[in-house]
Amino acid sequence: MSKTNPVLDAIYERRSIRKFTDDPVSRKDLTAILEAGRWTPSGLNNQPYRFLVIHDHDARVEPLAECTKYGHIVKAAKLLICVFLDKQAMYSEMKDHQGAGACTQNMMLAAHSLGLGTVWLGQIINDQAAVLEVLGLSTEKYELQAVIALGHPDQKGSSKRNELSEYMLEDF
Amino acid sequence: MSKTNPVLDAIYERRSIRKFTDDPVSRKDLTAILEAGRWTPSGLNNQPYRFLVIHDHDARVEPLAECTKYGHIVKAAKLLICVFLDKQAMYSEMKDHQGAGACTQNMMLAAHSLGLGTVWLGQIINDQAAVLEVLGLSTEKYELQAVIALGHPDQKGSSKRNELSEYMLEDF
Repeated sequence: MSKTNPVLDAIYERRSIRKFTDDPVSRKDLTAILEAGRWTPSGLNNQPYRFLVIHDHDARVEPLAECTKYGHIVKAAKLLICVFLDKQAMYSEMKDHQGAGACTQNMMLAAHSLGLGTVWLGQIINDQAAVLEVLGLSTEKYELQAVIALGHPDQKGSSKRNELSEYMLEDF
Repeated sequence: MSKTNPVLDAIYERRSIRKFTDDPVSRKDLTAILEAGRWTPSGLNNQPYRFLVIHDHDARVEPLAECTKYGHIVKAAKLLICVFLDKQAMYSEMKDHQGAGACTQNMMLAAHSLGLGTVWLGQIINDQAAVLEVLGLSTEKYELQAVIALGHPDQKGSSKRNELSEYMLEDF
């Protein structure tokens, strides 16, 4: 639909990537992606987002993979970005959850713009206690929101959406 | 930090805009923004996001403005994009709320890329029942997630963030 607007192109063309090459993700690219998370808006600018990066040789990858039925993706990723909310910095459960989603999307778009692939892992957050124990974090302080699997894409990815009219409650 | 990557620039440089000129937002731009919402990922690709656009001469603007202490922004906007979740299409409260936030962020980034300004109105969702009554919608069917005020910017906007190190739970 666009082809002249790289931001729209990224939003329309980003797809979940679940297969990655062995190429490393540079620290420069990783930093740019985390910066995209940092610039996410938050209610009252309370900035409740917290990140933890797990590299592929980290001893926590295996036990993390056991926390989800998508463990093969956890193990395939070159990097995992775990996205948390700092419970002390939260002001509204629903709005902070929305913000964490915006944050995850920002980082996935940033990765896509750098030629990298991601997938938003959500099923892994169902057992908060298990994941936080693997990571050595307290469930009293942090709420896990998502894990982003990241790497150089080894597939194209595909997805589809319903027509825009199905999203609209009225003509516009 | 970037200057060569328009996607990173948009993510880093977008600011909340609360003052708008009288210039209209074209239907082409509005469509591109709604398409950005449509392309938001969702858990199980369930696509629970619903949109309703209110133009500035709509009779519902005044009663909507009375639903929030930020009514002056509601009235200043050329367009309002109300973002909902279709309760029947939801699969996980937290994850669908995250998705609605990703959707809102996608539309704000899209608007920014088109030279338009937005602000994410969150306080207006506190009284769901009042807003949905103004819009003629059922709280049994829809959950209001956010209202995006949209128009051509009449201010620069400014914001700041803590250092990235304050977001990181470990070195990376």
